[in-house]
Amino acid sequence: MTKISKAACIGGGVIGGGWIARFLLAGIDVDVFDPHPEAGRIVGEVIANAEKAYSMLTGAPLPPRGRLTFCETLAEAVAGADWIQESVPERLDLKRGVLTEIDAAAHQDALIGSSTSGLLPTDLQRDMRHPERLFVAHPYNPVYLLPLVEIVGGEKTSAATIQTAIERLAPIGMKGVHIAKEIEAFVGDRLLEALWREALWLIHDDICTVETLDDVIRYSFGLRWAQMGLFQTYRIAGGEAGMRHFLAQFGPCLAWPWTKLTDVVDLDDALIEKIGRQSDEQAAGLSIRELERIRDENLVGILQALKGGHGGKGWGAGKLLKDFEQSLWAGAGGTASFDPTKPLRLVDAKVSPAWVDYNGHMTEHRYLQLFGDTSDALLRLIGVDLAYVEAGYSYYTVESHIRHLGEAKLGQAIHSTCQILSVDEKRLHVFHTLYDTATREALATGEHMLLHVDSKAGKAVAAPAAVLGKAMAIAAAHAKLAAPDGTGRHVGQKR
Amino acid sequence: MTKISKAACIGGGVIGGGWIARFLLAGIDVDVFDPHPEAGRIVGEVIANAEKAYSMLTGAPLPPRGRLTFCETLAEAVAGADWIQESVPERLDLKRGVLTEIDAAAHQDALIGSSTSGLLPTDLQRDMRHPERLFVAHPYNPVYLLPLVEIVGGEKTSAATIQTAIERLAPIGMKGVHIAKEIEAFVGDRLLEALWREALWLIHDDICTVETLDDVIRYSFGLRWAQMGLFQTYRIAGGEAGMRHFLAQFGPCLAWPWTKLTDVVDLDDALIEKIGRQSDEQAAGLSIRELERIRDENLVGILQALKGGHGGKGWGAGKLLKDFEQSLWAGAGGTASFDPTKPLRLVDAKVSPAWVDYNGHMTEHRYLQLFGDTSDALLRLIGVDLAYVEAGYSYYTVESHIRHLGEAKLGQAIHSTCQILSVDEKRLHVFHTLYDTATREALATGEHMLLHVDSKAGKAVAAPAAVLGKAMAIAAAHAKLAAPDGTGRHVGQKR
Repeated sequence: MTKISKAACIGGGVIGGGWIARFLLAGIDVDVFDPHPEAGRIVGEVIANAEKAYSMLTGAPLPPRGRLTFCETLAEAVAGADWIQESVPERLDLKRGVLTEIDAAAHQDALIGSSTSGLLPTDLQRDMRHPERLFVAHPYNPVYLLPLVEIVGGEKTSAATIQTAIERLAPIGMKGVHIAKEIEAFVGDRLLEALWREALWLIHDDICTVETLDDVIRYSFGLRWAQMGLFQTYRIAGGEAGMRHFLAQFGPCLAWPWTKLTDVVDLDDALIEKIGRQSDEQAAGLSIRELERIRDENLVGILQALKGGHGGKGWGAGKLLKDFEQSLWAGAGGTASFDPTKPLRLVDAKVSPAWVDYNGHMTEHRYLQLFGDTSDALLRLIGVDLAYVEAGYSYYTVESHIRHLGEAKLGQAIHSTCQILSVDEKRLHVFHTLYDTATREALATGEHMLLHVDSKAGKAVAAPAAVLGKAMAIAAAHAKLAAPDGTGRHVGQKR
Repeated sequence: MTKISKAACIGGGVIGGGWIARFLLAGIDVDVFDPHPEAGRIVGEVIANAEKAYSMLTGAPLPPRGRLTFCETLAEAVAGADWIQESVPERLDLKRGVLTEIDAAAHQDALIGSSTSGLLPTDLQRDMRHPERLFVAHPYNPVYLLPLVEIVGGEKTSAATIQTAIERLAPIGMKGVHIAKEIEAFVGDRLLEALWREALWLIHDDICTVETLDDVIRYSFGLRWAQMGLFQTYRIAGGEAGMRHFLAQFGPCLAWPWTKLTDVVDLDDALIEKIGRQSDEQAAGLSIRELERIRDENLVGILQALKGGHGGKGWGAGKLLKDFEQSLWAGAGGTASFDPTKPLRLVDAKVSPAWVDYNGHMTEHRYLQLFGDTSDALLRLIGVDLAYVEAGYSYYTVESHIRHLGEAKLGQAIHSTCQILSVDEKRLHVFHTLYDTATREALATGEHMLLHVDSKAGKAVAAPAAVLGKAMAIAAAHAKLAAPDGTGRHVGQKR
């Protein structure tokens, strides 16, 4: 997998800021050039949102955040970058000028992506000396959560550029989708534009309000499209008769006078005011910041749900998240050094909205989930990683004891530690503690017995020397620690 | 809340079958009339899918399934029904004839909904004697999971009919959305039609394949639209500048030659064949049945994720699911009789795709989730319901011990039982067992200590006599049972 070693972002703003957050959270240094006086504030807000979302999205170990530098000049920003992303306002002359300037200052091998949502790459690359490395890389807001990047080449863009661009997006959790021919607005905005025009007519003609229209989307095909698109959904609808039969039936509908084919609605002051008023009513007092938070939490929940799709293999955007997490775990390595005078600190997380009840308290079983993640992290540390499990061996938990000592709340930073109590050929006895990271107060403890198993045979077998050796080294160090409070308790035991 | 006491469905098929499943699973008897020779098989398949989806969707107690009757005549089916749903093929003359026949045979107070996706209610009700109770109730496939029903009245439809229709849909988990004015295709299909036409052009012109187009949707705005619609998403995009400013910027784009405004693509044999072939490639060997299962599992996961949205209050379709579950719990009552010679059987479920790891085994913490659900069910039985909790008192789990004895697998039917070990003023000591329902093999046990708390004060207080009385009655009966195997164990204890 080709990785980006240093990125440059020309233009901050909401889209540029989203790119910056993607790069930084994947551990990539970013140099930014944006003369706008508020660029620092806007970018900072986007990064803060992104960090909050990621802390809920995944328990996988994010690499140390990349270094963010605001540069005085464009040339300074692009120096040494192997991915340069242009996100300046949507005017051909402006973008072409900036891209030509980037081209002149950038290393010859650097890829140059434009965030344009509609301009043709052939027009953008016209004045470049090395136009073969220019392409459109059009993302969707919020860029730090939505994975799509439309990749579009111009007449002079090389095939190698397109391929490398798609490869380099994968490690930052994004899905580069190649659009075969360049047209204005590409594919996504074409579809959105068609639907948007129809939506404006429906509001203009008082068929419905903006709230009704939004409800129609989010209670029906919006749910479908989070996981399968238009054609695959219709394939299913066609059922046993097949896609071709289904399409043949569609034919006549297209000729019906349903949609406002020939006319573009006049988005005049009256219509703008009507939509503005209806949108205020729909928001029901929720601020933009609150709506943004609700949206991000929902997107996190949907991505996590899709991660469990297709029988746990992950589906669509959830498969992408799964792949992203696996690369994070792989990158984290299994040979981290540790301080033998303390229990191992293994999982850091924030309490995700999907984890709390209506009171904002973390649900009971999520404590066990975090203890399970803690056991998984310990196992990776002693060499029981995905490859080990796929080879047919693993540790299974056979017994757990949990004490609740405090309450974790929505958004709270928490972390867990692990102390190995004992280890032998087949058994691994561990004691985990979950802490409020801010106060260091213990929120819960988990004592667990794990057995090393041959998963196909379904029985306990001795762990190999390599694994045992690592576990025993940690256990030997931990043997000098005091037995944690609560070890060996049974339910209801007097204190 | 007005409830449907008996439903009639005229026309089976995929849409009619979806309605039938919605009614049956909400405990409503359904009489069906459909002369199609395969109606029974098709409806049966839809019901099977729906039952599978519901068993994963919710742990709330579904009422006993309604009785399904296939009738010989239309008149027989509609007799005694207070909701009649017409889902016959999409031809005005046919639908009008059927609706006029329904009108003649139905009770005067019965509501009559048509599943038409495009015909005008004024045209449909033309020949009816009681046209005031006819309306369009247009659902979306899969009807048993997608909540939207577009409610559209014709010239002669009464306002009371619209209001009652929306009220009656809520208890079956559906969202009736009133469309203010009747137009062909209403709102949802107008939007879909506009986007579909543009999509066909993109395929026709080889801008992209059906798979690329689907990916563009499901990795970007599809994820957004599962939770917020078009306008609310743009409201956020407008940021602090506001919706009106955002719209004013949109103006010029509408006049650009982006979408294929004036022309309708010819969906001829060549285009049908091209789409069919690309769709086959996209499916990558997955059958319609497999795609359907993946879709339903994804939708279940998305709905469950949105149930946790908005700080645990539920958002959009997830709020609807939460409301639906609360009405199920309320309907289940807290006075169920029980057999004192056995532990209480409290939760029945199927292992949901969101609950399994990539091996198809139920994840560790889901066992605790099921034990938590079992405790919740016991609490409701002794009077600790939502109202009790909202009044500021509850039971909190302070300690748990779990043993894993077997493995629950994807789709497996499982159930839990509860034995009260002891109860006093503040403490409730319970022992749960999770079984494979088919083999009766115990898969896991959970021993738990719960404390009765004043949640505002955050301390244990004595439970009131009404709650204690019910708990003690069960405990007294259970005192005659043997202590379950594993009671009082600590982790690592010798057998």
